[in-house]
Amino acid sequence: MQQNSPNGAHTLIRSLTDAGVEVCLANPGTSEMHMVEAIDGTPALRPVLCLFEGVCTGAADGYGRMRGAPAMTLLHLGAGLGNGIANLHNARRAGTPLVNVIGEHAVHHVPYDAPLTADIEGIARPVSSWVRTSRTADSLGDDAWDAVAAALTPRPDPAGSIATLVVPADCAWGPGRPAPSNRSLPQRYRAFDDAAVASVAAAGLDAGTLLLMDGNALTEAGVRAAGRLAARTGCRVLTTTFPARVDSGPGLPAIGRLPYFPEQIREVLSGVSTLVLVGAQAPVSFFAYQQQPSDLVPADTRVLRLAHRHEDGAGALAALADDLGAGAEGPVVTAVRPELPGGALSTRSVSEILAALAPDDCIVASDSGGGGAAVPAMQRSVRHAWLHLTGGAIGQGGPAAVGAALACPDRTVFALLGDGGAMYTNQFLWTAAREQLKVVTVVYRNRRYGILDVEYRRLGINEVGERAASLFDLSRPDIDWVALAASQGVPGARADTCEDFAAALGRALASDGPYLIEAVV
Amino acid sequence: MQQNSPNGAHTLIRSLTDAGVEVCLANPGTSEMHMVEAIDGTPALRPVLCLFEGVCTGAADGYGRMRGAPAMTLLHLGAGLGNGIANLHNARRAGTPLVNVIGEHAVHHVPYDAPLTADIEGIARPVSSWVRTSRTADSLGDDAWDAVAAALTPRPDPAGSIATLVVPADCAWGPGRPAPSNRSLPQRYRAFDDAAVASVAAAGLDAGTLLLMDGNALTEAGVRAAGRLAARTGCRVLTTTFPARVDSGPGLPAIGRLPYFPEQIREVLSGVSTLVLVGAQAPVSFFAYQQQPSDLVPADTRVLRLAHRHEDGAGALAALADDLGAGAEGPVVTAVRPELPGGALSTRSVSEILAALAPDDCIVASDSGGGGAAVPAMQRSVRHAWLHLTGGAIGQGGPAAVGAALACPDRTVFALLGDGGAMYTNQFLWTAAREQLKVVTVVYRNRRYGILDVEYRRLGINEVGERAASLFDLSRPDIDWVALAASQGVPGARADTCEDFAAALGRALASDGPYLIEAVV
Repeated sequence: MQQNSPNGAHTLIRSLTDAGVEVCLANPGTSEMHMVEAIDGTPALRPVLCLFEGVCTGAADGYGRMRGAPAMTLLHLGAGLGNGIANLHNARRAGTPLVNVIGEHAVHHVPYDAPLTADIEGIARPVSSWVRTSRTADSLGDDAWDAVAAALTPRPDPAGSIATLVVPADCAWGPGRPAPSNRSLPQRYRAFDDAAVASVAAAGLDAGTLLLMDGNALTEAGVRAAGRLAARTGCRVLTTTFPARVDSGPGLPAIGRLPYFPEQIREVLSGVSTLVLVGAQAPVSFFAYQQQPSDLVPADTRVLRLAHRHEDGAGALAALADDLGAGAEGPVVTAVRPELPGGALSTRSVSEILAALAPDDCIVASDSGGGGAAVPAMQRSVRHAWLHLTGGAIGQGGPAAVGAALACPDRTVFALLGDGGAMYTNQFLWTAAREQLKVVTVVYRNRRYGILDVEYRRLGINEVGERAASLFDLSRPDIDWVALAASQGVPGARADTCEDFAAALGRALASDGPYLIEAVV
Repeated sequence: MQQNSPNGAHTLIRSLTDAGVEVCLANPGTSEMHMVEAIDGTPALRPVLCLFEGVCTGAADGYGRMRGAPAMTLLHLGAGLGNGIANLHNARRAGTPLVNVIGEHAVHHVPYDAPLTADIEGIARPVSSWVRTSRTADSLGDDAWDAVAAALTPRPDPAGSIATLVVPADCAWGPGRPAPSNRSLPQRYRAFDDAAVASVAAAGLDAGTLLLMDGNALTEAGVRAAGRLAARTGCRVLTTTFPARVDSGPGLPAIGRLPYFPEQIREVLSGVSTLVLVGAQAPVSFFAYQQQPSDLVPADTRVLRLAHRHEDGAGALAALADDLGAGAEGPVVTAVRPELPGGALSTRSVSEILAALAPDDCIVASDSGGGGAAVPAMQRSVRHAWLHLTGGAIGQGGPAAVGAALACPDRTVFALLGDGGAMYTNQFLWTAAREQLKVVTVVYRNRRYGILDVEYRRLGINEVGERAASLFDLSRPDIDWVALAASQGVPGARADTCEDFAAALGRALASDGPYLIEAVV
């Protein structure tokens, strides 16, 4: 670059790194070349190439959930952003701080409606809490800082914490003006509301009380505080069905999980006299059904809110525990490693083997499929952080595992994926291989969209015709997951038996890089 | 279904098939189960499962370009639609008629903001010319008919021809009312404008005239009429750089193609005294550059419009040829099959071998990468329809090939893909295998985003740093395309030499199903 002052792209990247952004999940194109040039000269920012934008956004989500601070994506115009929408939807539901930087044609070029021109802001808005298109080169430094600040600004559920900055090429190549670096960034969670704590304390907690938790209530501090409350009052404690992140395991109080189907949730809630929401929304049915209500809270259950998701729910729980005279610590989970099962593999035995062999302080990212079934066994065996599929858009777990591994290079990351969801964003494997991330992928291979089999029969149809069945069926042809992983540089093995699976998992854990196990369940 | 009158889903599917929809590219979820049940009982509609929604939308695009009539997609809420956005962008740019049916939560369930809830209309609007959310079960039959009519309604470029119908689950399961089936559908192209023909005729065509063609000007009838004009007046005839579909080959007049880079386009246009647009837009730069204008038409070139893209450009050309006293037919291309080259493989020799061996009446879908280089050689050797990457969103060619093969089961379809673009939507291979489609995929494997290498250096940077280079580089790890295809049920071979490639192509053409060749170029 033959210029004396930094161009807009350099001031943008400088602002982002000043604001603490350390990783860039990238799939750039021509309109982003000046930003690539700026990244090339910025050792503080790690560029990570993904071969599909849904991997970029899902990885940024996983990173943000583990770090509590945003990664950036670098995507190519409206089409590149479009490919990332589904995992941005999941990230929005998770409340993950995340900054998208989307290249755009030069301002003067947009009206010519060249082939890649699209309504980028229109595509971004449904998944973003903050959208801005830069208009001049000298605003890029400030715009970038504002984007990080926006991603960290607490907002009420379900606004999310995704900031999308659209950067026209002429703003990137024009003369920049650095943003002042002494600006401060917001705290991610708003202070809890003393009045809400007092109100819940006044109402009183007892064995008929259920604490339903999400957000930062599910950090170690929050779970410990909830454990104190349970010990003091006899209340029950559950996570939502698909919380963004749960820190759990031996040494921490036990915490259950709300089930999935509406009739199961109603069963759990029947008899609950007081439901206390801590960073969670009141339970609603995941889908609508003809015979089920949307709102699953019984009419005679009193609903209190201790904290919204964007508030410091962990702090609120601790204050409530203090108010109610709870002791310093309640009972905690004692580590129990299950015996290794033998014989034919099943979702249950996969859970047991994972719980038997997983290293302490691991991370688990689950998608659709059987992964979630391992929650209870894992909670009894090892400390871990669990990242759930928050928004129901499958294809999230693999990319999230990549992002979590980038955020926490010293921790083993499990990606527990259904075969249907794994196929959506199978390109995450390549990035795991390139970056040599310690991601152990388990594909629960049942060769069908199992949930749809169940849901279809819930319509009352017991005879599934051939044409309908073809839409739930992932066989014909069978997907060879070991070959698919190998084609992208990830070694792996197929396991039909418990013995095979345990041996494969042993090899995976002994490796320093990624590994995939096709678990025949 | 225990009901006497058909439910909304049945009336929806009935309307779609009455309106001529024959293929459903599907990746349904729970909210679409009633529509799956209706499809199960409708032999006139062929359901085709795709393992990622970008394959659904790209295949619907390829189908629509070949048939001139819409296929439908069936996608799962906002997230499923989001995954299809990039190829809908391409389809919009192609003007392809296409109907999206997107499941939504029941109307009463939407306000509860369950995890998959999203602004579906907001996601759809940037890529759709028509968006409707059904509100009652008894409107679904009419809504579906209106969607097909909207997809066929001629609209000015760049509005596109994509209709998106959002179907709440309660509308699908509630009692339906069939739409009257005696309604008529619009013609896809508006009649040409006699005044435009007269105006171009009065201006006169000569050797300084360039006809720039897209839309239905590039059908066989349009190309023949342009050939008559060229023979009569000496004018030149070119397609746009990325036309939706070109019917070309021996027996038809020769037609060139506008190049890609702005300086190349300016070179072609220098000395053009009159530019006649026939279904095409005036040439603009694909991207903005600091040293290039956006509008590439020389200041002293007169620009006339014979037809807009949504008008019958082929008819306008024929009328113009008649007006100018052109003969019945101009010179046509004589078939010349190139000699089979030998030695190391290159993009050029791949073009020659394809041209030497491709069967007559084939279809070619190209994406990024070297495929487009085969246009001239193929034009000299076999009749074919060529489907270009219209919107610049890579990952289109494979899905489009699937759709073209569904539309034209008797024709061989080539998917000519760069390795970068092929990776985006590699799941098209699975659908090609399940449906046993005659799709011959050639992956031009150069292990880099080659265009970005070029574009980056156009910035004036000759020293590409390691971090920038890592973002253009598809090696580390190398992708094994033969293994990736095999993992999804598609046989294939790697070819390092011309001899290997010709042998592999021979095997591919002898097969009744899909085949993939990794061409080392």
